[in-house]
Amino acid sequence: MSTKIYLDNNATTMVDPKVKEIMDPFFCEYYGNPNSLHQFGTQTHPAITDALEKLYNGINAHDKDDIVITSCATESNNWVLKGVYFDLIHNGKKNHIITTEVEHPAVGATCDFLESLGVRITRINVNRHGAIFANQVREAITDDTALVSVMWANNETGAIFPIEEIGAICKEKGVLFHTDAVQAIGKIPVDVQQANVDFLSFSAHKFHGPKGVGGLYIRKGVELTPLLHGGEHMRGRRSGTLNVPYIVGMGEAMQLANDFLDYENTYVKALRDDLEKRLLEIEDIRVIGDITHRVPNTILISVKGIEGEAMLWDLNKAGVACSTGSACASEDLEANPIMVAVGADKELAHTAIRISLSRFNTQAEIDYTIEVFKKAVERLRNISSSYE
Amino acid sequence: MSTKIYLDNNATTMVDPKVKEIMDPFFCEYYGNPNSLHQFGTQTHPAITDALEKLYNGINAHDKDDIVITSCATESNNWVLKGVYFDLIHNGKKNHIITTEVEHPAVGATCDFLESLGVRITRINVNRHGAIFANQVREAITDDTALVSVMWANNETGAIFPIEEIGAICKEKGVLFHTDAVQAIGKIPVDVQQANVDFLSFSAHKFHGPKGVGGLYIRKGVELTPLLHGGEHMRGRRSGTLNVPYIVGMGEAMQLANDFLDYENTYVKALRDDLEKRLLEIEDIRVIGDITHRVPNTILISVKGIEGEAMLWDLNKAGVACSTGSACASEDLEANPIMVAVGADKELAHTAIRISLSRFNTQAEIDYTIEVFKKAVERLRNISSSYE
Repeated sequence: MSTKIYLDNNATTMVDPKVKEIMDPFFCEYYGNPNSLHQFGTQTHPAITDALEKLYNGINAHDKDDIVITSCATESNNWVLKGVYFDLIHNGKKNHIITTEVEHPAVGATCDFLESLGVRITRINVNRHGAIFANQVREAITDDTALVSVMWANNETGAIFPIEEIGAICKEKGVLFHTDAVQAIGKIPVDVQQANVDFLSFSAHKFHGPKGVGGLYIRKGVELTPLLHGGEHMRGRRSGTLNVPYIVGMGEAMQLANDFLDYENTYVKALRDDLEKRLLEIEDIRVIGDITHRVPNTILISVKGIEGEAMLWDLNKAGVACSTGSACASEDLEANPIMVAVGADKELAHTAIRISLSRFNTQAEIDYTIEVFKKAVERLRNISSSYE
Repeated sequence: MSTKIYLDNNATTMVDPKVKEIMDPFFCEYYGNPNSLHQFGTQTHPAITDALEKLYNGINAHDKDDIVITSCATESNNWVLKGVYFDLIHNGKKNHIITTEVEHPAVGATCDFLESLGVRITRINVNRHGAIFANQVREAITDDTALVSVMWANNETGAIFPIEEIGAICKEKGVLFHTDAVQAIGKIPVDVQQANVDFLSFSAHKFHGPKGVGGLYIRKGVELTPLLHGGEHMRGRRSGTLNVPYIVGMGEAMQLANDFLDYENTYVKALRDDLEKRLLEIEDIRVIGDITHRVPNTILISVKGIEGEAMLWDLNKAGVACSTGSACASEDLEANPIMVAVGADKELAHTAIRISLSRFNTQAEIDYTIEVFKKAVERLRNISSSYE
């Protein structure tokens, strides 16, 4: 198969070759353990310091705040929820967490687990456009609320949630606020000061860094029981030998993500808008979510009468990679949960296709994609039993 | 500084260039999310399957057992202890864990944390040679015991613990058994069948793989509450997008570790034995631990009258990298805990130097190290206030 068009950037991204290049020397040449006192250890320090600075700048963290390197946002999200469980719930102080019904499973399944331990979980509903409103959070907060956890942008629809407003409400009410910003970084400005968040999760592989490294921002002075106890790395916050190449790579990827933010919101957005407009010319097609409140790279589209998997297969045969929704759940061919959440009926819930662009996509790729998409719709509707 | 002799392989190792080479295409070329259904996802599968097979072969795991990829042994260790906490302790079934006083902090600090939650922890003492005996475990087991966690080889002395015997006892008593095998893999044969372990932790960067990836072996049919809830990766055991390059690299590193096991136990052992013998010619020097029950690459040596940090500094200036003990604790210049455990007095506890070799070391490096070691001892004892 010679055509290879990658439109599944919300699942993972290509490592930017510049990121690969900056990581390379830290495998076989500068391989010391940064905690070691000898030259092999200390010679890694400037690159780590530099990477951390890029991360702090990237989300506008304060010097006194913590950015702790983790193995991915799944770890960061588990850490916040389970850390708060041990800090505020296990000891009987509080017993309530507020989240949404459309979080990534790293938050959703962790909340399910905490619920099984007796924690009360409120899951805020999205409306038919996949949106939530800050007032829904305000109304759910009680004296018993330990944490609010709301994603910055949804992985499937790309819907941007009102994080600043929710942050202001949590601050006013004195409730800890966590946001999973995995799908926001590199797509829209992410500023932890402005958003009033206490915790923010991110993952390098969603912004052209490597898979298997991420971070958790923790506001200055906020306690959090570690998820990984041990050798007291990262100021005692998170133990485990530092993954030097990936830390260095993630710093570079964060800086590139911010350097390309304008490009993402002009060039990539224009590609996405063009693709969306031309796909909507097909009959009985619906895009989920208001385009004005969405990250610039994402389209979740429902093609009436066609199973998402069938579309995905036709597109894949033509060399175009999309998704039926989060790759984190695509092994089991269930109805797309966001489609259920926005109120789609059972049949329509299976028709979602997610297309997510990156700065590496071109107009020629988009033109080709529209062509094969239309052909696939025609072919599959012709053989569809549910489409007349 | 031109001389660079790396003798701190228990802290971390150089990535084998062959491992680097096999990882390289998975950053910018085969970068798909393995969970994705399109070609970018599926084309990563053969390499992952191959890597897992190398890991299964490497520790002689059964097809039906699980090897779950984690971000490091710190995660694996935390997972076992906290998973068992939720499986057997939080619900009131059991309330006792047996470990040793010389575990890596990833086990030790996690046990401290569980103790703060009310779990009873028994910490088995080592004798003055840094050894423990299986009967100590037998005597500590009660009906209330949920887990025994004993490392396979100690990171500081290299002492090999009687894992097979302890495994047999745990099997007999029906108690779950975990071993942290981080310092055993690549140094001595590690066979999960023979050792009767239920859980075994390992970390790639201790056997010439990359930092930031490890694994947890889980015997067939053994339940364990996840540490990372989420998208149900790794058969629901551990969520988080798979770190494809590092998984591929760890597989290769495991195979190389086993390929070189004979070399480690002949050539590397001969280098270590030669080094040890010639260092012991220095007056008032003591090596901790019986050489016949030690991994082939490690020496923990106490140089009377000289602070370990001072030795380390002199050696480092001459281009030789050693350690004062675990790099995981070397940021705070406390007494070496293993020295305290083997009964050294306060002054002697600060004199430990750990030398740990690898298959990349040469006889010329060892000769040079002996020379600079002797010079350093002479210089430092001349200015020592505590050595007459």
